[in-house]
Amino acid sequence: MSDTPSSGPANAFVSAELYTLVQQFYARQMGLLDDGRPDDWAETFTEDAVFQEASRLNEPLRGRDAIRESSRARKKRLDGDKIDFRHWLGMLDVLPQDDGSLRTRAYALAMRVPRGGALDIFASVVCHDRLVQVDGTWQVRHRDLHHDGSVRD
Amino acid sequence: MSDTPSSGPANAFVSAELYTLVQQFYARQMGLLDDGRPDDWAETFTEDAVFQEASRLNEPLRGRDAIRESSRARKKRLDGDKIDFRHWLGMLDVLPQDDGSLRTRAYALAMRVPRGGALDIFASVVCHDRLVQVDGTWQVRHRDLHHDGSVRD
Amino acid sequence: MSDTPSSGPANAFVSAELYTLVQQFYARQMGLLDDGRPDDWAETFTEDAVFQEASRLNEPLRGRDAIRESSRARKKRLDGDKIDFRHWLGMLDVLPQDDGSLRTRAYALAMRVPRGGALDIFASVVCHDRLVQVDGTWQVRHRDLHHDGSVRD
Repeated sequence: MSDTPSSGPANAFVSAELYTLVQQFYARQMGLLDDGRPDDWAETFTEDAVFQEASRLNEPLRGRDAIRESSRARKKRLDGDKIDFRHWLGMLDVLPQDDGSLRTRAYALAMRVPRGGALDIFASVVCHDRLVQVDGTWQVRHRDLHHDGSVRD
Repeated sequence: MSDTPSSGPANAFVSAELYTLVQQFYARQMGLLDDGRPDDWAETFTEDAVFQEASRLNEPLRGRDAIRESSRARKKRLDGDKIDFRHWLGMLDVLPQDDGSLRTRAYALAMRVPRGGALDIFASVVCHDRLVQVDGTWQVRHRDLHHDGSVRD
Repeated sequence: MSDTPSSGPANAFVSAELYTLVQQFYARQMGLLDDGRPDDWAETFTEDAVFQEASRLNEPLRGRDAIRESSRARKKRLDGDKIDFRHWLGMLDVLPQDDGSLRTRAYALAMRVPRGGALDIFASVVCHDRLVQVDGTWQVRHRDLHHDGSVRD
């Protein structure tokens, strides 16, 4: 994690326009996943995106096609199990980079509710993203999820 | 839910002013409910507002008076049971409509703490609102709550 | 709590710039605590800051040095117990004061995950802050935490 700053210098904050753009991006992006739209979800990543959960020792997903396949399989499982899933992001920090990309850090909560069952908020995750603009649209080029409670490097 | 879009097109985002206005509206509105101020809460809805929880098969509340009565009864119950209640909204999406109104979608968590007891985050809900301006003040004209884990239409 | 308004008048909202500045301040400030950086955390409070949790009957922490010592001790405990800790703030209301300071109110969730263990979201708290600018940097001069479920004054 040596090149992923946990936060920027005090009071070096981004503009309201940029901050709320990223807030809206995440609300909509995670909504696509939670609404069971894996193909639209995949479109929010760059063609060459890397999606990793280093703290779980999974192999990273490499490329939009791999991300699409993974989220299609995920949707199939959840539909089969009749589970509603929600991803909340919050506590967002946005760090503009010299190349025009954005590094972001956010807290995330993952939760599920089986049909007729009880809410289970089961994971607290720290999400580090690299966002880039492609044809006027923000996309995730790199996502790194660290699950709280996991062994850290 | 056929006419309630789950989200807008990618990157069609609203201005920072509008987005933070709606964020502040919800923080304050839900604060009124959580602070036990049912009459002030009712004033955040239009006279003809409809408040429905279709996923729970309840009859909708129709009109501000019905919303006020319902929230007064709710406060009485919670005060009697000595329960602190919190409603969190997040993951907000704002979709301006041609008539000047706003459609919003947000995730909500409902939680309670009995006096001396443990926190219970018991419901994950998706909130779809129609907001309108009345005399320069934003109000809810229509609220539709869908509880995760319920049978969907 | 007589001089701590629970919320402002309807629709008296602050600008997007101010609202997102405070959002970013809290994301970064709480991140410092959660990342185990007690000295940087202490710098986000004024020299004469007061940090109180009236609802828990603790004595207030008075002054940045006391806040630093307390958070250093806290870090030592959490490191020893191998616990990841997260503080979420949300549902933010910002009330500018005539003297240029800000009163804020936010909901907070406190959660922890022991190494290899399950997520425990154990406290819902209402945070009332007084923020002031010192040398162009926002700092907390007064923080008052009220734990839901505690006996109220």
